[in-house]
Amino acid sequence: MPDQRADKISNWGKWGPEDEIGALNYITPDKIVAASKLIKKGKVFTLGVPLTQDSDEPVFPGRTPSIRFNSIDASTFLAGRPLLPGGRKGASDWMGLYTHGTTHSDSLGHTWHDEKIWNGYDEKVTIGGMAKAGIFKPAQHGMVGRGVLLDIARFKGVEYLKAGEPVTLDDFKECAKKEGVNFQIGDIVIYRTGWIPALFKYPELKKAPEFNEPGIQYSLDFLQWFKDTAISVIAADTIGMEQTISTAPEEKGSTLPFHKYLMRNVGVYIHEIYWLEALAEDCAQDGVYEFFYVASPLKIKLGTGSPINPVAIK
Amino acid sequence: MPDQRADKISNWGKWGPEDEIGALNYITPDKIVAASKLIKKGKVFTLGVPLTQDSDEPVFPGRTPSIRFNSIDASTFLAGRPLLPGGRKGASDWMGLYTHGTTHSDSLGHTWHDEKIWNGYDEKVTIGGMAKAGIFKPAQHGMVGRGVLLDIARFKGVEYLKAGEPVTLDDFKECAKKEGVNFQIGDIVIYRTGWIPALFKYPELKKAPEFNEPGIQYSLDFLQWFKDTAISVIAADTIGMEQTISTAPEEKGSTLPFHKYLMRNVGVYIHEIYWLEALAEDCAQDGVYEFFYVASPLKIKLGTGSPINPVAIK
Amino acid sequence: MPDQRADKISNWGKWGPEDEIGALNYITPDKIVAASKLIKKGKVFTLGVPLTQDSDEPVFPGRTPSIRFNSIDASTFLAGRPLLPGGRKGASDWMGLYTHGTTHSDSLGHTWHDEKIWNGYDEKVTIGGMAKAGIFKPAQHGMVGRGVLLDIARFKGVEYLKAGEPVTLDDFKECAKKEGVNFQIGDIVIYRTGWIPALFKYPELKKAPEFNEPGIQYSLDFLQWFKDTAISVIAADTIGMEQTISTAPEEKGSTLPFHKYLMRNVGVYIHEIYWLEALAEDCAQDGVYEFFYVASPLKIKLGTGSPINPVAIK
Amino acid sequence: MPDQRADKISNWGKWGPEDEIGALNYITPDKIVAASKLIKKGKVFTLGVPLTQDSDEPVFPGRTPSIRFNSIDASTFLAGRPLLPGGRKGASDWMGLYTHGTTHSDSLGHTWHDEKIWNGYDEKVTIGGMAKAGIFKPAQHGMVGRGVLLDIARFKGVEYLKAGEPVTLDDFKECAKKEGVNFQIGDIVIYRTGWIPALFKYPELKKAPEFNEPGIQYSLDFLQWFKDTAISVIAADTIGMEQTISTAPEEKGSTLPFHKYLMRNVGVYIHEIYWLEALAEDCAQDGVYEFFYVASPLKIKLGTGSPINPVAIK
Repeated sequence: MPDQRADKISNWGKWGPEDEIGALNYITPDKIVAASKLIKKGKVFTLGVPLTQDSDEPVFPGRTPSIRFNSIDASTFLAGRPLLPGGRKGASDWMGLYTHGTTHSDSLGHTWHDEKIWNGYDEKVTIGGMAKAGIFKPAQHGMVGRGVLLDIARFKGVEYLKAGEPVTLDDFKECAKKEGVNFQIGDIVIYRTGWIPALFKYPELKKAPEFNEPGIQYSLDFLQWFKDTAISVIAADTIGMEQTISTAPEEKGSTLPFHKYLMRNVGVYIHEIYWLEALAEDCAQDGVYEFFYVASPLKIKLGTGSPINPVAIK
Repeated sequence: MPDQRADKISNWGKWGPEDEIGALNYITPDKIVAASKLIKKGKVFTLGVPLTQDSDEPVFPGRTPSIRFNSIDASTFLAGRPLLPGGRKGASDWMGLYTHGTTHSDSLGHTWHDEKIWNGYDEKVTIGGMAKAGIFKPAQHGMVGRGVLLDIARFKGVEYLKAGEPVTLDDFKECAKKEGVNFQIGDIVIYRTGWIPALFKYPELKKAPEFNEPGIQYSLDFLQWFKDTAISVIAADTIGMEQTISTAPEEKGSTLPFHKYLMRNVGVYIHEIYWLEALAEDCAQDGVYEFFYVASPLKIKLGTGSPINPVAIK
Repeated sequence: MPDQRADKISNWGKWGPEDEIGALNYITPDKIVAASKLIKKGKVFTLGVPLTQDSDEPVFPGRTPSIRFNSIDASTFLAGRPLLPGGRKGASDWMGLYTHGTTHSDSLGHTWHDEKIWNGYDEKVTIGGMAKAGIFKPAQHGMVGRGVLLDIARFKGVEYLKAGEPVTLDDFKECAKKEGVNFQIGDIVIYRTGWIPALFKYPELKKAPEFNEPGIQYSLDFLQWFKDTAISVIAADTIGMEQTISTAPEEKGSTLPFHKYLMRNVGVYIHEIYWLEALAEDCAQDGVYEFFYVASPLKIKLGTGSPINPVAIK
Repeated sequence: MPDQRADKISNWGKWGPEDEIGALNYITPDKIVAASKLIKKGKVFTLGVPLTQDSDEPVFPGRTPSIRFNSIDASTFLAGRPLLPGGRKGASDWMGLYTHGTTHSDSLGHTWHDEKIWNGYDEKVTIGGMAKAGIFKPAQHGMVGRGVLLDIARFKGVEYLKAGEPVTLDDFKECAKKEGVNFQIGDIVIYRTGWIPALFKYPELKKAPEFNEPGIQYSLDFLQWFKDTAISVIAADTIGMEQTISTAPEEKGSTLPFHKYLMRNVGVYIHEIYWLEALAEDCAQDGVYEFFYVASPLKIKLGTGSPINPVAIK
């Protein structure tokens, strides 16, 4: 059941009663200018996973992979349809997907408890489309700032974290210390578990009877830490960003407790299903774990989230 | 009919026989570092149009607007479904859209003539999904660099260009001169017609018997200019980026002749359906028409294009 | 506002508190056997409209036409994919559509007023999928019986009824008398306005500023007539089956008042967007306006309706 | 590889060079009248499987289950949207599905070999939509006639046939003899394996490493039998209607060889994924294995097949 102590760790009203973008407000123009100075090598990393339209796609239980069909291509003309005026030909396609079914940004209203979502909006604004705290406003605003990578798998010396394995606040702090990373207001914090690559590499992981990913383990302290460090986004290379079935004393057996409190109370965005292999390799080589970061959700009116292909630039 | 003179203005093979990203190759790491210096105010402009799911959406004839449905929301629990473990609730959605049906990047293989697409790949690679020169490779690579805005509507002193109105190479050059813009290798060149905003503001424009947008008017000289200036992307606030029904002597009556030659022969990316109002206003105010630019297509395997919400940062 | 007098014309509870198929219960096995005797010529009429995927499709405002894409076809093999084992090739497709967006059967829960749907089920059963009185149960049951055609357009001597033109209960009775049709318990009653064919033939009809179809004009008497005659289905060749904007004294300005009362209170099914031209022609020629009727909705769990291609056999 | 002997067992041209409905031509009006006499009890059996939107749905490898979303329901009004004029409320939905992904009728052009489909049409007519021998023409025509059930599982005394288990022509003949069924020109022949119910009941069957259903085993004799008996439709309660991986001497290792020859050469329709439990039970009880049959594909222009919910009436 929801925990009143967790609800006291809150940023409701901090940016006014009409706010729909929460912790993105931390990223002031000066922070963007400062973050841009991190671009030193001119190297670009794209952090989205492929949309493959098949069962390889890492999707949450109950969702189906994306679909994609050509509406026209070279065969259209082979089949006898006249060329377009001037002798032109073309190929186009249509696609369908769960907005949370590939690399994506949640909106702040995506999950909640009791009858209120982020900033105290009534949960009824979610019905039939997210009328408040949806993905449209942050998509309009942009998600641009300083990103940092916590390579937890490397820090722990493993290829990938095991199913259900917790990542504690201490892990976060020690990994950051080892990497020489400090946390700054407005940061986009990305942590690496190796889980998504492992799902592709070891198909038997998908056959586990229970969906139970590794990830950050909820605690009141960890929630408070998010509020105090004032980061704007937390992202991971897992489908659900956090430990699926909580082993935390405060939330034993809850699923995804950070989803319950973090967006709703603190206004921090959750990004999921990242592909971090090339970025992590580069960070390990040059020892620089900070970068300029841009994610740009589609401006989906009423949307609960949006697919993104985030970009890290060093 | 396709023009052999135009086919001689070509970059095939320039980046090897296996290349699938064309003019994006121009954007070397040093250019990205240089472009990052344009971030001075920390101001972000997102250039995508809203996905509204209704007939407001500016789509090419024959395509339908996007669709979006909630798969779960607060009503699910109001209707009696048990809360998720721990008392959590959530809202999610699914969407379907033409990949070229909102602000998007074409892939280099999107249009062509005769039996060859970009870099000489046989047109059969487009069948059932773009196996070569599709959107996957540029999505993996990233589209990051220096952007420049040519505000043609402002240059011409009009709110928006009229249906079918041509924008000539001279317009481009003079507008750039007036704005103090020089063109650099690898640039993302965006020009503003005011057409998309006008479609929203003046619905009667949509009722024209013929689909005929304003835009750059094809000529061999203009095509050669694209090759010589070595830009990587050309974008506009229209559905088709260029004059729909060509009034060019070389291509009288052709539709979208740049689509026929520019991607196929020269390897320049076409981006369409931009929303440029806020960016244009800012440029007019501070007189700075260059900026750091990031667009990040989704990594759609076999995709012919991808929706994007491009970001300009000044 | 809903009319309490109309709510007294009710069949709630008539077939038990668990009933989900309403007036279909009238069609007892003996009636099916009797109806089968109407098959005398062995002539089959299919009453669905084509699914064309384009703006020709007659859909209710706010819905979009169906979409359909090939997932594989001859071009797949032309493009170099190996033949299936044994040298086989194939073509398949995927489609998306509003279940009420082509010829279809509504479920009894499709429309209602106040907080109750058919048989008194709470309206919350409609949320996220129709858990009661949806299309699944009637699809499982089948819609088989005696059909009768009232050719109102022919009766009135017009090619098609005008926009908003009312069809009264007297029209119904007199048309039936002229045709020699009596009404029997459980009948599927289909009436013809000529409207759908006119939409195809006279595109300007679609451009009317207001969506306002011709059709049966609501009245308490007409509602009572439905209850008393005990028919099971009412169908028409319009998108909404009834006069769109009511000119009835009891429901002035209401839209689709039969939709408000007929399914909810009386349990009569509404079928829409029929194509009746060939059937009507045949009936006019042989003077026989009754036939064996089969419609077979898909067994869509939680569905609010289903596309059908109804069959009339004489 | 395709077998020239099989190609000699052909009905090409039998109904003219323009024919697109093949063996449905056998069902002349007198046969429909005769079949209607089989309606004696007034009992209706609907033979479609449920569309459940989840992994329970029996779909061919590479296809995904259907999807369905509400576009409006009671929650829309709970969330504050005004009632429709007159106080009406409504619930509607949208769905997406593979046309061969639930109970369905193939079109004659659905599978083929070499460069020709049914009646000799060039395979290019399948590209981007089936321009010839698609589902539109038979949907317009109707599929109405005499159906017979061969309950092979009962005949063999098993609950369901094992994976890959062949059903031979002799099985067919002997089962028919035991049931007292004779075959008549134009018949819809349905045989029962128990496989689809077993897939629901024994989930481990779905986990087999190889997709290999039981079903009729191809042979030249069996193909000839189809031609000679002049049936119009062959249907089964499996996903692929026939033995998946052929154990026939003529087609060792071929997949679905009847698909290669039967529709293409002989013009017999294939219907798949039937639910036959209630019908089979009834036939076993009254000993009557023949019935009036109606299937009614949707009139999908260019469609390769259509979902159906077939009806058997005794």
